[in-house]
Amino acid sequence: MQVAMQEANIALKNNEVPVGGVLVNNETNKIITKAHNKINDGNNAILHCELILINNACEKLKSKYLNKTTLFITLEPCVMCAAAISEAHISAIYFGAFDEKKGGIEKLRIAYKRNNIYLPQIYGGILEEESANLLKNFFRNKRNES
Amino acid sequence: MQVAMQEANIALKNNEVPVGGVLVNNETNKIITKAHNKINDGNNAILHCELILINNACEKLKSKYLNKTTLFITLEPCVMCAAAISEAHISAIYFGAFDEKKGGIEKLRIAYKRNNIYLPQIYGGILEEESANLLKNFFRNKRNES
Repeated sequence: MQVAMQEANIALKNNEVPVGGVLVNNETNKIITKAHNKINDGNNAILHCELILINNACEKLKSKYLNKTTLFITLEPCVMCAAAISEAHISAIYFGAFDEKKGGIEKLRIAYKRNNIYLPQIYGGILEEESANLLKNFFRNKRNES
Repeated sequence: MQVAMQEANIALKNNEVPVGGVLVNNETNKIITKAHNKINDGNNAILHCELILINNACEKLKSKYLNKTTLFITLEPCVMCAAAISEAHISAIYFGAFDEKKGGIEKLRIAYKRNNIYLPQIYGGILEEESANLLKNFFRNKRNES
């Protein structure tokens, strides 16, 4: 989770919403890939950290699915990313700050409650305060700038 | 929508789930980009037609958002793609076949009902029979192969 925080801090320096993450191989405990938000840098509203991680990992592992991997991410994934994590069969997520507005894990459970879909194990609130403060300070500064 | 169908047929020839789409500029009515599913070809479970279209269009237009564009797609977007379409601010979607299992447009409405998020205008059932038959035949053949 410290690596995910480091990535979030890189995003912050790049004037991106500070969210960072890392994908780990469950068997070796080694990092497969790490990333941060690149919406501004990549000029693309869907370049969330999680989609970048999934794309990089599939390419690196030459695998359509990412079973037996764990995602550490500083913010609760949005609905898009939660659904992408489900599609990619990531086995577990540990996230930092809860996202009351766009956080999609519980929404995905609700949305799909009648369907048999793949859902990872989910653990929220890891380094929550540190992750949340990074985001709060970023948005406070943005408001002060405008 | 005929162009989206052509793309779906390319996917079919490539042994991909036959879904195709095209993104159009609302002001000029010209095609910005067209694509089809590339999950097998790209070895990546999230390479749905819609994500490819959004990534290509953002790159081509050098724009983070895709306001004033319309998506024509042969299958109702899944939750991941519906949320991506929302993030990218695509203004309208016309889709062919309804997806009872993973179709995410209505689920997104339900999931987000208490939040103020961007939602496109949505029109389903365009060339529905043709789009649905392409998918039904694909999955029937897959079952017969196994």
